[in-house]
Amino acid sequence: MLLTKIKASIIGRPLKTEQLQEEKLPVWKALPILSSDALSSVAYGTEQILGVLVVAGAFALWYSLPISLAIVGLLTLLIISYRLIIDEYPGGGGAYIVSMDNLGWFAGSVAGASLLVDYILTVAVSVTAGTAAITSAFPILHDHRVAIACGFVLLIMVLNLRGLQESGTIFSVPTYLFIISIVMLVIVGSFKILFVDGGGTPPPITSHFPEGLTWFLLLRAFSSGCSALTGIEAISNATPTFRAPERKNAGRTLVILGILLAVLFGGISLLAYLYHLTPVLEETLISQIAEETFGRTAPYFFIQATTALILILAANTSYSGFPLLASIMAKDKMMPRMFTARGDRLNYSNGIIVLSLAAILLIIAFHGHTERLIPLYAIGVFTSFTLAQSGMVQRLLKRKPQGWKGRLAISLTGAIVTFIVLLIFAVTKFTEGAWIIIVILPVFVYMFSRIYKHYNAVADELRIDISAEKPQIKKQMIVLPVGGINQVVRNTVSYARSLDVDVVALYIAFDEEDAKRMKGKWNEWCPDIRLVIMRSRYRSVTRPLLRFIDKLPKYVGDRQVTVLIPQFIPRRWWHSLLHNKTALVIRFILLARKDIIVSTVPFHLKK
Amino acid sequence: MLLTKIKASIIGRPLKTEQLQEEKLPVWKALPILSSDALSSVAYGTEQILGVLVVAGAFALWYSLPISLAIVGLLTLLIISYRLIIDEYPGGGGAYIVSMDNLGWFAGSVAGASLLVDYILTVAVSVTAGTAAITSAFPILHDHRVAIACGFVLLIMVLNLRGLQESGTIFSVPTYLFIISIVMLVIVGSFKILFVDGGGTPPPITSHFPEGLTWFLLLRAFSSGCSALTGIEAISNATPTFRAPERKNAGRTLVILGILLAVLFGGISLLAYLYHLTPVLEETLISQIAEETFGRTAPYFFIQATTALILILAANTSYSGFPLLASIMAKDKMMPRMFTARGDRLNYSNGIIVLSLAAILLIIAFHGHTERLIPLYAIGVFTSFTLAQSGMVQRLLKRKPQGWKGRLAISLTGAIVTFIVLLIFAVTKFTEGAWIIIVILPVFVYMFSRIYKHYNAVADELRIDISAEKPQIKKQMIVLPVGGINQVVRNTVSYARSLDVDVVALYIAFDEEDAKRMKGKWNEWCPDIRLVIMRSRYRSVTRPLLRFIDKLPKYVGDRQVTVLIPQFIPRRWWHSLLHNKTALVIRFILLARKDIIVSTVPFHLKK
Repeated sequence: MLLTKIKASIIGRPLKTEQLQEEKLPVWKALPILSSDALSSVAYGTEQILGVLVVAGAFALWYSLPISLAIVGLLTLLIISYRLIIDEYPGGGGAYIVSMDNLGWFAGSVAGASLLVDYILTVAVSVTAGTAAITSAFPILHDHRVAIACGFVLLIMVLNLRGLQESGTIFSVPTYLFIISIVMLVIVGSFKILFVDGGGTPPPITSHFPEGLTWFLLLRAFSSGCSALTGIEAISNATPTFRAPERKNAGRTLVILGILLAVLFGGISLLAYLYHLTPVLEETLISQIAEETFGRTAPYFFIQATTALILILAANTSYSGFPLLASIMAKDKMMPRMFTARGDRLNYSNGIIVLSLAAILLIIAFHGHTERLIPLYAIGVFTSFTLAQSGMVQRLLKRKPQGWKGRLAISLTGAIVTFIVLLIFAVTKFTEGAWIIIVILPVFVYMFSRIYKHYNAVADELRIDISAEKPQIKKQMIVLPVGGINQVVRNTVSYARSLDVDVVALYIAFDEEDAKRMKGKWNEWCPDIRLVIMRSRYRSVTRPLLRFIDKLPKYVGDRQVTVLIPQFIPRRWWHSLLHNKTALVIRFILLARKDIIVSTVPFHLKK
Repeated sequence: MLLTKIKASIIGRPLKTEQLQEEKLPVWKALPILSSDALSSVAYGTEQILGVLVVAGAFALWYSLPISLAIVGLLTLLIISYRLIIDEYPGGGGAYIVSMDNLGWFAGSVAGASLLVDYILTVAVSVTAGTAAITSAFPILHDHRVAIACGFVLLIMVLNLRGLQESGTIFSVPTYLFIISIVMLVIVGSFKILFVDGGGTPPPITSHFPEGLTWFLLLRAFSSGCSALTGIEAISNATPTFRAPERKNAGRTLVILGILLAVLFGGISLLAYLYHLTPVLEETLISQIAEETFGRTAPYFFIQATTALILILAANTSYSGFPLLASIMAKDKMMPRMFTARGDRLNYSNGIIVLSLAAILLIIAFHGHTERLIPLYAIGVFTSFTLAQSGMVQRLLKRKPQGWKGRLAISLTGAIVTFIVLLIFAVTKFTEGAWIIIVILPVFVYMFSRIYKHYNAVADELRIDISAEKPQIKKQMIVLPVGGINQVVRNTVSYARSLDVDVVALYIAFDEEDAKRMKGKWNEWCPDIRLVIMRSRYRSVTRPLLRFIDKLPKYVGDRQVTVLIPQFIPRRWWHSLLHNKTALVIRFILLARKDIIVSTVPFHLKK
């Protein structure tokens, strides 16, 4: 009862199943919940591009503008493609469902694996990046970064266990503040450059291709910048959590996200170019731009604070995506069934908890330096993009709905472009860690296939023909191990006698004298139940009991055996340390090894 | 079965109870097992005295000789007193049994607590000191000292789990090597001083009391030196593990230990004085003496190696003492009953494991620097010395056996002297950590009293009058939660029908349609068992089940309820992750909250 109360105080009172509808999200709440991951990547997208280009010298920096434009173009394509998916799949599900549905089991499990891995990486990476922002401001906290990051994960976990509605309210504030602060930065910065600085003096643009700048470097800069495109999948995956009309609201949210991303990312890239900024080790690009624009005044600190906050909250996107995807995959028998269970607050609590634990393990394993994982997770994202668009192509070709040709063109373009980007990623980032993903994905796919086979095998085994396979009656007998004669044994023997079944009591004696004494007492106390006495030379109770049960069929035929095991139920938890756990051990071994029934007869201690 | 095999390969094949006698120890094996703690303290006893005296200047060092003599005198008194205890208590048990027996429950539990704490401290301190000797030789290992020390504890644990006989053989070699090496050092060193160096030039002896040397300092030096006296208790505690005649063999071992201790300790102190040595930070006193005597040649390294080895093996003394004492106290209902269970190899395996875990926790908590704990554990030793001798005084006064007056004189002197030493300890070492022991002992004593009360209360509750309190017959009924109709349910329903008892099947429906469909199917499949359908609005199965059971008495009177719970038994361990643990949760809650019987009906999956 105490546990129930503690649980309620942390995650809130249980909700009824009918309350499910009320938990659904309006657009203004869905946007911050589902898009903080995508929006927060604005904080490092441009910086990743410049970080690659700067190797080729100052002249190369100009190429950040066309690259950013290409990325915004890719973004537009993705937004349009995903709107088609939302229309076709109002029941939710992005890459996993689309590819499972149209491309088959294998493509589906690859998409599922890459999405699940990505959700975990997103939590670890975002939370540690946010923690790094905080520990940079307060260096004294640096040594505690692992504890702080894990604390944040736990905090987000608890908020999510409380349910979508409330966490939506909590998470919407910082996301909107971040949007406001970056929009403000872009507007004031552009204004300052145009009217105050007189347009600045942009670096000279040469008509020649700068020396040192190779096509490989350009592609690498492009793929680095694509880390700003993670998190789009979340919305189409979560269509059913939207308030009705789900399809329309999800589509609208997707478009709003696309416009915001284009404005914020494009604006940051433009300002960085006009201010002639390059990435430095000690200061983030956003911080440099904000300092150029406002100096170290209140608006600067406001921008820094909202950036740090949204990085941590970006992890929350995964808390909408991972549990939902895991539950869908569990319904498809590819993940353990526990992921389908809705918790007290109607969310998929097991998914929330598993996601948190996996992220915490990653944070601890990388000593809180998960920034290195940033390049990795774009691979998973583009794998799922490609599979989703390919699935749509297949679907449109098969169904040919009204206006299918236009849609096919969009999806085909999407599939081809994202596949090319994926290849660019795999090649240019292979040594940076892309190979890890290439190792992990097959492991996941293999795991899914094993789980799938197991569930199908079990389903086959459990299937019953109602008209033919009726319950059967079998002759029974009870074996009752006794350790002496006392109130516990009386309680158990009373139960056995009440059942009107043959009963044999079994006593394990440690020496001859012990055996004789017990025989005498038993015959006086309960002569109508037969007592078998066995000798144990190894001080074990379990082994003689197993031996006895093995030999039973010889004497009693194929009766079904029930073993009665008395169990102390102490009043205080620490009392249970004072009583041997023999009952539990016997129960476990008997159930695992034999086809017998184990009945636990409790004896509740009063003191 | 695999676990059984792994266990057997680590700790050896199980032994029969009759083999207990064979495991008993001859003197030559008992001496190294039971005295490595006492002998190893020679390695730091003299150093502790000199470390205190050196504060008062070079003239004060002379006082190490009378102090060492006083300690040897105290040792003689203790050896004689403990021989009396062995004679009176051939059944084993030192301070705990003697004080329990003669001074009552409270004194007994104080003695027990101080001994248990001491055994744990001995393991932690000895192993880390030995590890320090190794890491001093190989500084590269210094950062891994915690892992190395824990590894040694685990190694000693496994050797002890294999049983006394074998560990006796393993541990006797280094102990004898240590004795040989120190005796050799004392003989060669004395010879060299007398005949080669011409007697050396001992520091001048002044007839005046040196300035700076206070009585407090002298007492402190004395009590520091008494750390060489720990470990004597072990022999009298372990009397029953000796080969017959136990009493005589134990007494003989005690005397041999006393002579060895006096020779080694006295010899080291004398050599240190004649060589004018004082403790330095980088080198132990033994190392300095050995270097003066042999130079850095083979004998020097032999002495260093055996010293390091015996320090680690000293921990082994506690592995004889702790499990035996814990088992005695458990029989007296002061410790959990599990400590009385003999393992496969006839030793008290739970005591061995708990001791190891406690020592490992201490090592980790102190980051492998448990040297600081050295001053602490002499307090526990002298507390138990005092209680043991006081108990003997009480016993002799009451029984007045032949020749009791002489024995009384010895025990009384022992009690008074050890009590004075205890007071000196408590005062001179209070700020060095003695206060910790003064806090811990009452906690242990309180714990013992709670355990004692609980076991007595349970015994009262279980007591039965064989002639009057017979097994009773009570009306029964079975509640059978079903989750649908399949082979598992068929298996469980078959069992229920075989028992000739009223059966009610219970189905938890999540909506109206679900309820209707189930009702129809059930009536077709098994119309003779009544199916009750309940609605759950909270997606919980447990709560409606509990509610149903609560309401039962209204309809069926005071029948005893048995709940049948089907349980999947998968063929591979990882399959169990794929099935919900609802059965386990329901079983746990029902047993803890209700007075009903829970029968687990296994369904063994074939695939």
